[in-house]
Amino acid sequence: MAFSEFQPLNDKSLVDYIKATPSLSSKLKDHLDNLTVKEVGDGNLNFVFIVVGSHGSFVIKQALPYIRCIGESWPMTKERAYFEALALREHGRLSPDHVPEVYHFDRTMSLIGMRYLEPPHIILRKGLIAGIEYPLLADHMSDYMARTLFHTSLLYHNTTDHRKAVAEFCGNVELCRLTEQVVFSDPYKVSEYNRWTSPYLDSDAEAVREDNALKLEVAELKSLFCERAQALIHGDLHTGSVMVTPDSTQVIDPEFAFYGPIGFDIGAFLGNLILAFFAQDGHADEQNDRKAYKAWILRIIQNTWNLFHKKFIALWDANKDAGDAYLPAIYNNSELQQLVQDKYIKELLHDTLGFGAAKMIRRIVGVAHVEDFESITDASKRSGCERRALEFAKLILKERRKFQNIEEVVSAVQQIQ
Amino acid sequence: MAFSEFQPLNDKSLVDYIKATPSLSSKLKDHLDNLTVKEVGDGNLNFVFIVVGSHGSFVIKQALPYIRCIGESWPMTKERAYFEALALREHGRLSPDHVPEVYHFDRTMSLIGMRYLEPPHIILRKGLIAGIEYPLLADHMSDYMARTLFHTSLLYHNTTDHRKAVAEFCGNVELCRLTEQVVFSDPYKVSEYNRWTSPYLDSDAEAVREDNALKLEVAELKSLFCERAQALIHGDLHTGSVMVTPDSTQVIDPEFAFYGPIGFDIGAFLGNLILAFFAQDGHADEQNDRKAYKAWILRIIQNTWNLFHKKFIALWDANKDAGDAYLPAIYNNSELQQLVQDKYIKELLHDTLGFGAAKMIRRIVGVAHVEDFESITDASKRSGCERRALEFAKLILKERRKFQNIEEVVSAVQQIQ
Repeated sequence: MAFSEFQPLNDKSLVDYIKATPSLSSKLKDHLDNLTVKEVGDGNLNFVFIVVGSHGSFVIKQALPYIRCIGESWPMTKERAYFEALALREHGRLSPDHVPEVYHFDRTMSLIGMRYLEPPHIILRKGLIAGIEYPLLADHMSDYMARTLFHTSLLYHNTTDHRKAVAEFCGNVELCRLTEQVVFSDPYKVSEYNRWTSPYLDSDAEAVREDNALKLEVAELKSLFCERAQALIHGDLHTGSVMVTPDSTQVIDPEFAFYGPIGFDIGAFLGNLILAFFAQDGHADEQNDRKAYKAWILRIIQNTWNLFHKKFIALWDANKDAGDAYLPAIYNNSELQQLVQDKYIKELLHDTLGFGAAKMIRRIVGVAHVEDFESITDASKRSGCERRALEFAKLILKERRKFQNIEEVVSAVQQIQ
Repeated sequence: MAFSEFQPLNDKSLVDYIKATPSLSSKLKDHLDNLTVKEVGDGNLNFVFIVVGSHGSFVIKQALPYIRCIGESWPMTKERAYFEALALREHGRLSPDHVPEVYHFDRTMSLIGMRYLEPPHIILRKGLIAGIEYPLLADHMSDYMARTLFHTSLLYHNTTDHRKAVAEFCGNVELCRLTEQVVFSDPYKVSEYNRWTSPYLDSDAEAVREDNALKLEVAELKSLFCERAQALIHGDLHTGSVMVTPDSTQVIDPEFAFYGPIGFDIGAFLGNLILAFFAQDGHADEQNDRKAYKAWILRIIQNTWNLFHKKFIALWDANKDAGDAYLPAIYNNSELQQLVQDKYIKELLHDTLGFGAAKMIRRIVGVAHVEDFESITDASKRSGCERRALEFAKLILKERRKFQNIEEVVSAVQQIQ
């Protein structure tokens, strides 16, 4: 059988597709009877099928030509599957322990076959809502970010390879445009898609739309996002794009990948951890006041950044001859090496804080909210959590250049508390 | 006849080529007898033929697969002709009064046919050495820069068109790499290509190679050059890329064009004017002390920037709905518009000063020098001029963020004096 043009698959046609596709059927050792197929996509953009046979399993992800949660009214190129597959393979090569293996890609069908992250893997965001500690999370995520971001930047690339890769990922412009709209634009203007916990946050949302100082900073971040090809970033690295067990941390869903600012990825991850922190008061009950868990989240934030910093610099030190950014014949003494690395990391912290804050704001007054808050059923309580998160994000966005290290950021979180 | 593969033309084969090419022969009204063909390329990279017939004329520029002045030992893709033709057409569309019209482009032959800028057009650099004032220079160059840079930035582009154009010009990476090497690398390390007025400037060149603070700033500029796709820049906008008469200003040779930082173009132009300023003492004689001319150059620097600023902002104000950078629904009050424009221009001034200074330094201690200094035969006198220019450039590169406007820059030039 042939799928010579795109068609959305269902439980049934998927089995036919697998039978016709050796790279998939071989993963099941060609035992294709009694397959269980389950559609589990809870995201906004795609079908996700879990396929389990007697001798193997995988996940099939198929991109649809529109944003699923809104319906066919918001078209979105299914070519994003191509960029997702490219990014999974490139990031998987660089950080194989934390990216699921790609078994198969079909551009016509916008379809990726990849490793099934079997139970007890769950979405990190759900674990954070449940109050579960993941002892290796900071170590794993810092490892993933340091490896993928360092090796796709000019600290490792020569400019020939870099510009070639940049040009390729320019093709993922529609997904970039979605980010531009929902992160950098809609929250700062009246938009039909915006929502917030009303009426509690009505004046807070209005204040965001009328804050000149905030909009001035957002413009700078948007310009970085649109113009600065610093590394191959995941592009949507929130806590819903990470699957975890106590031993395993796997980063999925890089369909927004492109060459952009490194701080956008780190900021997305840390910003969503901070959202999880501010949501905890809404999940506290008589059995568990969540105080210890809040302290754990703050430690994860601190450790993720500090471990990232350490690992990123270690990769830099170990690959001084590799990239075109800092030629060893020029950056040829230890004082200067220290100066350039300190400057790089300081600017990266400020970018991270800026992007992280922007990602927080959009989750409170923009189109797509996070389950961390949405699962707090008492709207009054929820709005209180959201307001504190929003106040922190606004502060950080405007004042980010004053922060010297992550400890000062964690202190600021505690003070808003 | 057919030129199915690349071959370097000479006076003779060029005539055959013209006869076989209607878009060229028609420019001569098909009067192809008694053509005069003169090869005039004084640049480093190409053949340039002036073709004059009884009923018309044009220039033929052919890119060679190496850097001409160094010989075949330094290979350089002839595909740069493709990007030069693209940029000539795009910039010509945006600023037709200041870019020569393209009549013909042949990618196989790396050959561009374009308007012949007939006498009295001369290279601006030669006019500056001769001490000639061009009353319309600042007006014309500010016009060219404002129009070309504004309309190819996200102030005018949407991000779809922008990323598509960025991807296309990523192909011009070899020319970018040449800039990376000669502007941002070689002057700051020992390189076989570097030269300077020796022995006078031996310790000055060494001081550049050992200046940690300078190298730290150069790294930031190189990163902007390699990563920031702000607008379609000319990429080599020195005073040798401009042809002038008292009435006409024409920008040529955009073979280094790509999507890069706007300040790189403005800095190249202003930096080369500052080099011309510091060279004047070497051209002074009993008839002409060049004092008035030096004052004129400073006025041109000041007027070019201030007129650019005014015209760029006027284009911005007139096209508020056009680009994706500052959506009018967000940047929706005059105070905020003023804030974002002031911030944009301030950062652009600092970029301009940084790149301008880097372009000055490389012309004094790097591979390719400028005739402004080279034509000063007395090496002692020449080195004095060069040293003052170098001191100014180092100061500006390190302290550029302290300058609020162009008047402060002009004052700093006068103080080094």
